[in-house]
Amino acid sequence: MSDKQYEVIVVGAGSSGQSVALAAVKAGKSAALIEGRAFGGTCPLRGCDPKLVLHAAAEAMYRVERLLGKGFTGKPDFSWSDLMEWKRGFTEPVPESSRAKMRDNGIETYQDYATFIDSHTLDVGGTRLRGEIIVLATGMRPAPLDIPGNEYLLTSDEFLEMDDLPAEMVVVGGGYIGTETAHIAHALGCQVTMIITEDEPLDKFDHDLAALLRQADEDRGIQYQINSKATAVRKAGDRFEVDVEDTAGQTTTLRTDRVIHCAGRVPNTKRLQLDKVGIETDEKQRIKVDDGLRTNLDHVYALGDCAASGLPLTPVGTYAASVLNDNLFKGATRKVDYYPIPTVAFALPGMASVGMTAREAEASDRNLSVHYKVANDWFHARHRNAAVFAFKLIVDDDRDVLVGAHLLGPGATELINLLYLVIRQEIPTSEIKRMIFAYPTAASTITSMLRA
Amino acid sequence: MSDKQYEVIVVGAGSSGQSVALAAVKAGKSAALIEGRAFGGTCPLRGCDPKLVLHAAAEAMYRVERLLGKGFTGKPDFSWSDLMEWKRGFTEPVPESSRAKMRDNGIETYQDYATFIDSHTLDVGGTRLRGEIIVLATGMRPAPLDIPGNEYLLTSDEFLEMDDLPAEMVVVGGGYIGTETAHIAHALGCQVTMIITEDEPLDKFDHDLAALLRQADEDRGIQYQINSKATAVRKAGDRFEVDVEDTAGQTTTLRTDRVIHCAGRVPNTKRLQLDKVGIETDEKQRIKVDDGLRTNLDHVYALGDCAASGLPLTPVGTYAASVLNDNLFKGATRKVDYYPIPTVAFALPGMASVGMTAREAEASDRNLSVHYKVANDWFHARHRNAAVFAFKLIVDDDRDVLVGAHLLGPGATELINLLYLVIRQEIPTSEIKRMIFAYPTAASTITSMLRA
Repeated sequence: MSDKQYEVIVVGAGSSGQSVALAAVKAGKSAALIEGRAFGGTCPLRGCDPKLVLHAAAEAMYRVERLLGKGFTGKPDFSWSDLMEWKRGFTEPVPESSRAKMRDNGIETYQDYATFIDSHTLDVGGTRLRGEIIVLATGMRPAPLDIPGNEYLLTSDEFLEMDDLPAEMVVVGGGYIGTETAHIAHALGCQVTMIITEDEPLDKFDHDLAALLRQADEDRGIQYQINSKATAVRKAGDRFEVDVEDTAGQTTTLRTDRVIHCAGRVPNTKRLQLDKVGIETDEKQRIKVDDGLRTNLDHVYALGDCAASGLPLTPVGTYAASVLNDNLFKGATRKVDYYPIPTVAFALPGMASVGMTAREAEASDRNLSVHYKVANDWFHARHRNAAVFAFKLIVDDDRDVLVGAHLLGPGATELINLLYLVIRQEIPTSEIKRMIFAYPTAASTITSMLRA
Repeated sequence: MSDKQYEVIVVGAGSSGQSVALAAVKAGKSAALIEGRAFGGTCPLRGCDPKLVLHAAAEAMYRVERLLGKGFTGKPDFSWSDLMEWKRGFTEPVPESSRAKMRDNGIETYQDYATFIDSHTLDVGGTRLRGEIIVLATGMRPAPLDIPGNEYLLTSDEFLEMDDLPAEMVVVGGGYIGTETAHIAHALGCQVTMIITEDEPLDKFDHDLAALLRQADEDRGIQYQINSKATAVRKAGDRFEVDVEDTAGQTTTLRTDRVIHCAGRVPNTKRLQLDKVGIETDEKQRIKVDDGLRTNLDHVYALGDCAASGLPLTPVGTYAASVLNDNLFKGATRKVDYYPIPTVAFALPGMASVGMTAREAEASDRNLSVHYKVANDWFHARHRNAAVFAFKLIVDDDRDVLVGAHLLGPGATELINLLYLVIRQEIPTSEIKRMIFAYPTAASTITSMLRA
């Protein structure tokens, strides 16, 4: 016997889960929302939002730094603990305000982890909840790094909570989380060494642009150990030693104040005990779903970062939630369609990407042209003394439309949205070339990009 | 008898004039390009480009300032003369490189002012040039301010050349040039008072947003004398006195280190002696042209800032040149069509506008809705402690398309280009709401804007 029954149970109170729970009660359904960690999820607590708070300060510092000797004669004084306090002003109110919002809307909230008892029933701290529909939106967390001394590692979550910025830091992992972490810390005064298994950072982005970013990083003093992995961490007084092994099997040892582990994330599905009820996951432990976000069980759905559907990005989760909500509560039969989605690394400078990659273009037998240029000498880059400005646009020449865009440099993280719109709406490039964008802005470089 | 004959004579070696001269020789025509001032024109020498060089430094300082007590504990040290030297690195090579580029392309260049002798002939420093076609692209310059003591005023051109930044400055005029001048100077450490005839700055932009900008300005210490005009300037030792009269006839006197006059610009047409050959101008002294950029004389054309055609913006001049070039040298019959064009004030924060204004919306009998909100509390504004973030979007509800967009705050100057694209391409707002813009970027706020 269940203690409680709901028409809809949502597990995970991040943005996707909250959206589904709200849509359920709005449609007149009884709904429960269960969260083992703090209400709010990754984005406002441990992801996009706090990261951007730190990034805003790092970017201001970085801009000053780029103009040293060109107006600025010194860098501003800075306090990491002041920045952390400012950041906590954003994150700390979230759990209570999120949970209150849910309650105010008539959603019953549970602060504990959920475990399947049977396919319709979850145990939540000893209470049994039965749901006609169960929606899993448990998100992801940093993957453990299985090496000796892993207890000395801080995760990227913990980096965002650090009380002080050390003088030296090693960052393990060069994806967007590792790169952003390294760039924020370096801009704010920390010596950073990156350890990455690939030969360039940001391997989900364009390889040529990533190589330019690493070059710019190295020019300003960020150190890279490429084609390498951390194999052990040891405490050495107040500091740490990190063994780093390269692909040739060569091991070196780094000494540093702090080691931040940003290599990989895994879905938060272990405590659910999915296998007990036969919910299938993929090789990355993500919950398998169809294009209606339904798992292999008819009444169980999954979305957001824990689901094997779309990129693990907040707006993708929000979009998936809108599809699921329409289907579950408005009788729609929408399917998720992850038509090119812009992705961004808030590096310094920013990296951004949407649509077809250069590798896909090479492999394609379509009539495509690649407009690739390192445009450091363009006014857009020069006037702020940008470290690097480069782009790669992929145009389908037969159809006269943009199909891919990859940007590195000032304005990239914003301009990618405009190019996404151009790709998605299939606006002819001949039409784009006639546009009168405001000058001087990042968008005003597009015409020149298309000619490059 | 003329000394020289050309198929095409272009007067004015700014971006529009250079474009036409290049197109002429490319089409196999003989061409002359005449310039009284330095080759290059307003944009790279006295406009957009040097302004943006200064703005980049001012913005970096401004960003630090916004985060004082929130990470930064002090502002960076700064040297105006270093900044000027950096800026001169952009402007100084322009005249020689522009002129060399023209010559290398086979254009004969003349460094002097031109005066009409007859409708086909110009006097250029004693040389008579006869042109089958004459194209006028002489641009604009700061209008003289006809008050006692006007010899003590510096123009906005001279501001961009100033050897040192004074402790106190009065800026006369609150259009985009005055506002940008004031904001750059203030961010870099100068006390600024603005004298403006209107009740808000930036009167070409949305009035509500302009009021918010003034409030933000006053909060950070910029002083405004609204509904006022400067009536006299006197030297007082090393400083100056400025008499300011308000609409009630009340006069006060300001004491300051420097007075910068940014109120109004006039076409550079006086030396041409247009009236001698009967070329017509409008009430603002701009050369009248039809939608093919032809003056009332069949073989004389005008474009760029000196022509009464479109806004005086570099990309508008470039666009007009492309139309004229197609018509003159490729047998086309294009007409200029100034479909909504984005305009931007590089204020701190930025102001931007495109399409229908709120006033036009009010006066319209179309079914329009205005989405106006001061969104300082949105994460986009909060995370960088933006002084203000506000928008006004105008939607044609019957057609479900955006028809006007007005933005103030972080990201405004870039985002306006995306909204311009949306307006111009008439992308349905229902379609925009389904877009998955990268988060957190300025573009990712659009969906919320449309719901506001």
